[in-house]
Order: sequence, then structure tokens, then C-alpha cells
Amino acid sequence: MRLVTYRAGGGMRPGAVVSVDGEDHLLDLSSISARVEEILADEARLALVRDAVAATDAASLPRLDSVTLAAPVTPGKILCLGYNYRGHVPDGVDATANDPEWPDVFVKTPNTLAAPDDAVVIPQGATDVDYEGELAVVIGRRAQRVSIGDALAHVGGYTILNDVSDRAWQRRQSQWALGKCSDGFAPLGPWVVTADEVPDPQDLLVEVVRDGVVTVSQSTSTTIFSVAFVIHHLSQVLTLEPGDIVSTGTPQKLAAAQEAHRPLGDGDAVTVRISRIGELTTTFTVAQEAAR
Amino acid sequence: MRLVTYRAGGGMRPGAVVSVDGEDHLLDLSSISARVEEILADEARLALVRDAVAATDAASLPRLDSVTLAAPVTPGKILCLGYNYRGHVPDGVDATANDPEWPDVFVKTPNTLAAPDDAVVIPQGATDVDYEGELAVVIGRRAQRVSIGDALAHVGGYTILNDVSDRAWQRRQSQWALGKCSDGFAPLGPWVVTADEVPDPQDLLVEVVRDGVVTVSQSTSTTIFSVAFVIHHLSQVLTLEPGDIVSTGTPQKLAAAQEAHRPLGDGDAVTVRISRIGELTTTFTVAQEAAR
Repeated sequence: MRLVTYRAGGGMRPGAVVSVDGEDHLLDLSSISARVEEILADEARLALVRDAVAATDAASLPRLDSVTLAAPVTPGKILCLGYNYRGHVPDGVDATANDPEWPDVFVKTPNTLAAPDDAVVIPQGATDVDYEGELAVVIGRRAQRVSIGDALAHVGGYTILNDVSDRAWQRRQSQWALGKCSDGFAPLGPWVVTADEVPDPQDLLVEVVRDGVVTVSQSTSTTIFSVAFVIHHLSQVLTLEPGDIVSTGTPQKLAAAQEAHRPLGDGDAVTVRISRIGELTTTFTVAQEAAR
Repeated sequence: MRLVTYRAGGGMRPGAVVSVDGEDHLLDLSSISARVEEILADEARLALVRDAVAATDAASLPRLDSVTLAAPVTPGKILCLGYNYRGHVPDGVDATANDPEWPDVFVKTPNTLAAPDDAVVIPQGATDVDYEGELAVVIGRRAQRVSIGDALAHVGGYTILNDVSDRAWQRRQSQWALGKCSDGFAPLGPWVVTADEVPDPQDLLVEVVRDGVVTVSQSTSTTIFSVAFVIHHLSQVLTLEPGDIVSTGTPQKLAAAQEAHRPLGDGDAVTVRISRIGELTTTFTVAQEAAR
């Protein structure tokens, strides 16, 4: 199932996306729960949602594009991985030779969270803003010191995060926070695909399309640290709560895209698409002050 | 004024601390606001609190130690500085020679927040947990692209943060998140001293006492980046909201304390005291699983 959060009546409501004849419609779930996080955390509520989706007449529902989506969950914390995809190596070279022993973990603050259709405002003075297309794990059940074998049982679902980054700030300090934490620098969505529909999170193709050109294309089979390992690992150090996001890092840009790269500017659009999950398109605008 | 958040009736309430005959009493403020953040953000509410404090008969109030304190605010984000105090240098040596151009900023996640009297649980497997005594700025008014001259007008007050750190995790990756973000690794409090009572945040003595020995003793006059600069600087990149915490880094341990240093263990106690603000004592315990 695909679960969304949408704006209605001055508040936010959970919904399920139901397709008919290739068109997405919206089933309101507010009679079952107030929040997607709560649904993901509770098998009984998930079962009610499944029943409601099965019983609905999709064609009678409003179209998904008639509502405004919010980020599908409001995470208490957004934990992100740095380097987590192996590069392309020639035949005969050990692709794992440069693997670090541990994932490099950093935090995006709550002000970075953006709805799937929100434009990202490039802050005044930012000269080197870049995108990162990432598979984002949505925690379903609290995880504390879970084993690798049990880790995926704590995953509620998967969504897409664009880890927007200001490379200039990222380079100025040892810690990346100021390069990662500008307002709106974490567009998330458009929905959470529940974990039952993603039997193997290490077999998904992550692609990024910028202005019509594919700039990233790599499978999650090439990550250094699997989703199961990362959840296990993080849960040794801190408690993961329902709705928390663990973003699994971005593959490197393709060689041609690296050569042609220029910082994001006004009107640029970036689509991150991940097989089985969906796609998230983000447009970029410059800050009004700077545009004057 | 000193503002606290305390537990009552299954919820949390704001209060003011009023002293009489050297004893702290508690004036409930829930008729004025539900949250300390809201009071700090609103001059009219602050004036009501001042009037209420002036009008009260302190001796008739419950003693502060008769209630359980929570963290004085619940920050949306906790931003911390790395290296921000200059070291001691011999006469004739330029103390500013090693100053970085920009502060090094990292994030502590919401699960780190702890009440002033909460014990910090040393996670199972953590072998090198350390303390850091820090002056923490509490944002009062939203700050977006504020000048250095205007920055202090956005400060609601000051409190104390112990930036508890697992040095082993901190060293294992380029980013410090896993060394900084274990549950309860940010004891905060015991109260917020409102900004009007701290005319110069660069003239405060920060001290740490561990098991009876002073291990840190240095004035905020020796910071590389002032509170005003840091608020200005952060606000260029992201929006600071009421209740957000900006922790200003720890002075280095005194030479003798560096030599005698051992990781924190079961039953250790650390007191951070800052002139004009107060003191925050944290005890450490080992995780139950490990203690078995």
C-alpha cells in the first residue's frame, strides 16, 4: 500500500492511494487513525487500512492530484548516511576494497522537512547547492538494540528523500550540519510504500533525472551497508521511533553527469525515482531577497 | 527570572523560581501559558510573568524541590558547536592563531534531551563516555538572517547543557552523530535564566566539577565565536525557532584533569556550573543489560 499525508480543513490527514485505470485516487483514512506513523506502528490499524482499500470503489474517490500532499510522516529524527554506495570498478578490482568499517551518520534537523511538491528555496548566498537521491526507510516499530535478523521487522515502509546539500557549507567545517540543514532541504515522499510490498530493499534501482538527463542510476544491491544492518547498527546507539527516517545515502553521479554538473539554480527540477517506490520531483527557486 | 518546566497531573507546566531566605520556591505559570517557549517568545506574556513574580508571597509557594523538573524547553533542534574556546597559551603567543574561520556545527537529536535530574544511562558497549559543560542559548524569537547587532534580541535566555559524548563512536566516523545522539545524552537545565538577567553572555565563568574536582574553568570571554555571532551565522543558513537550543561548546579540561581523565562510569556525577545561570548535576549509570 501507498500511504500519504494530505492537507484538509486546516490540518493534516492520512490517506491511502488507490489506483484505477492508471489513475491515482485518495482514500481518506482519518476514521482509522490521525497519523501515518500510527498506522505503520500498529498491525491492527494496518489491517483495517487493507480492508478499507479492498472494499473501496476507487473510481468514486477524489483524485490524488486534487489534494495537497504533506510529507508522508513527520519524523522525530532524520538520520542520513554519507558514503554508502560502492563506485564502479574495472573487472578484477575488488569493489569492496574501500569499504569503511562503519557507516558515516549525520542528522538533518526538522526544519529541513518539505512536502513532496514544495519547491526548495536556495538560500541567499548559497552558491553550490546539489541534490542526492536516496531510498529513505520509515521506522514502523520502535527499535532498540535489534539484531540484524530482526531489523527489517521494525521498518514500516519506504519512501524517497532528496538530501539537498549546500556543498560550500559542507566543505567549510568538519561537520556537515550547515550544508545539510537549510529550511526545506529534505523533500520527502510522495508516499510511504508499506514494507510488505518491498520484499528486498537491496534490489531497488535508484535513479535521478535532472532536466531530462539521467544523472544517477544504481541499484541498492551495491550499497556497503544494507538496510537491515543500518537499522541494527543505529539501534545499538539510540532508539528509533515510529516515523523516524533513516536515509540510506546516494549513489555517485554517472561520469558524464559529474563532468556536466553545475550547482542547482532557479527553475531547475530534479526527479528521484526508485523502483517499487515511486518518484519525487523537486523544483528549485532562489530566495526572494536574492532575486530582487 | 528563572523559568522551569515541571511535571504535574500527567503533563508538563511552566513555572517561575522565586527565592526567599535562600530557598527556591515554585510559582505555577500555567494560567499565563502552557509552555516556557511561548513565554520567551512573547513580551506580553513575559511581562505578566514578571508581575506575577513580583506580586507573589514566595514563602506560601511549594518548594522547588517538591516537584520533578523536566527539561526547561523542548527544542525543535539542538545545534551544538565543536571547538569554540581558545586554549591557554604562553605570554607572547597569539591566542587567536588557531581560530577557525567558521564554527563547526553539529546536531543532537530529540531523543538526547534529558531532564535536569535524569541519570544518563551509559549505553551497553560504550567504553569512552565523556562530559562537556556548555552555556546553552535558548532562542526566544524566530531568527532568520539576523545581523550580529540584532542577534541577541532573538535570545530568550540561557541554560546549561551537558553535551555527553561517546568518544569511541565520535572517532569512528567523520561525522560525530553516533557519538553525540544516544538517548539522554543532552541533560538540559535546570532552568532558563531570561536574557535580561545576562547582560553580557561573553562574561560568564563555565566550570565543571567531577567527583569533587574542578576539571574545567574558563570564561565565555575566551570563546572564538560570540553568542551574537553564532546566532547571526546560523540564521543565515536556517531558521531558528523559539525553544531551539544553540549550545556554545565546552572549554578544554584543565591540564591536570586531562591527565587524570577516565571515561564516565556507574555512579559518577558531573556538575556543570555557570555564573549567573546556575548548576546542572548529572549522574551516570550503566545500562541494565550490561549491569546484569
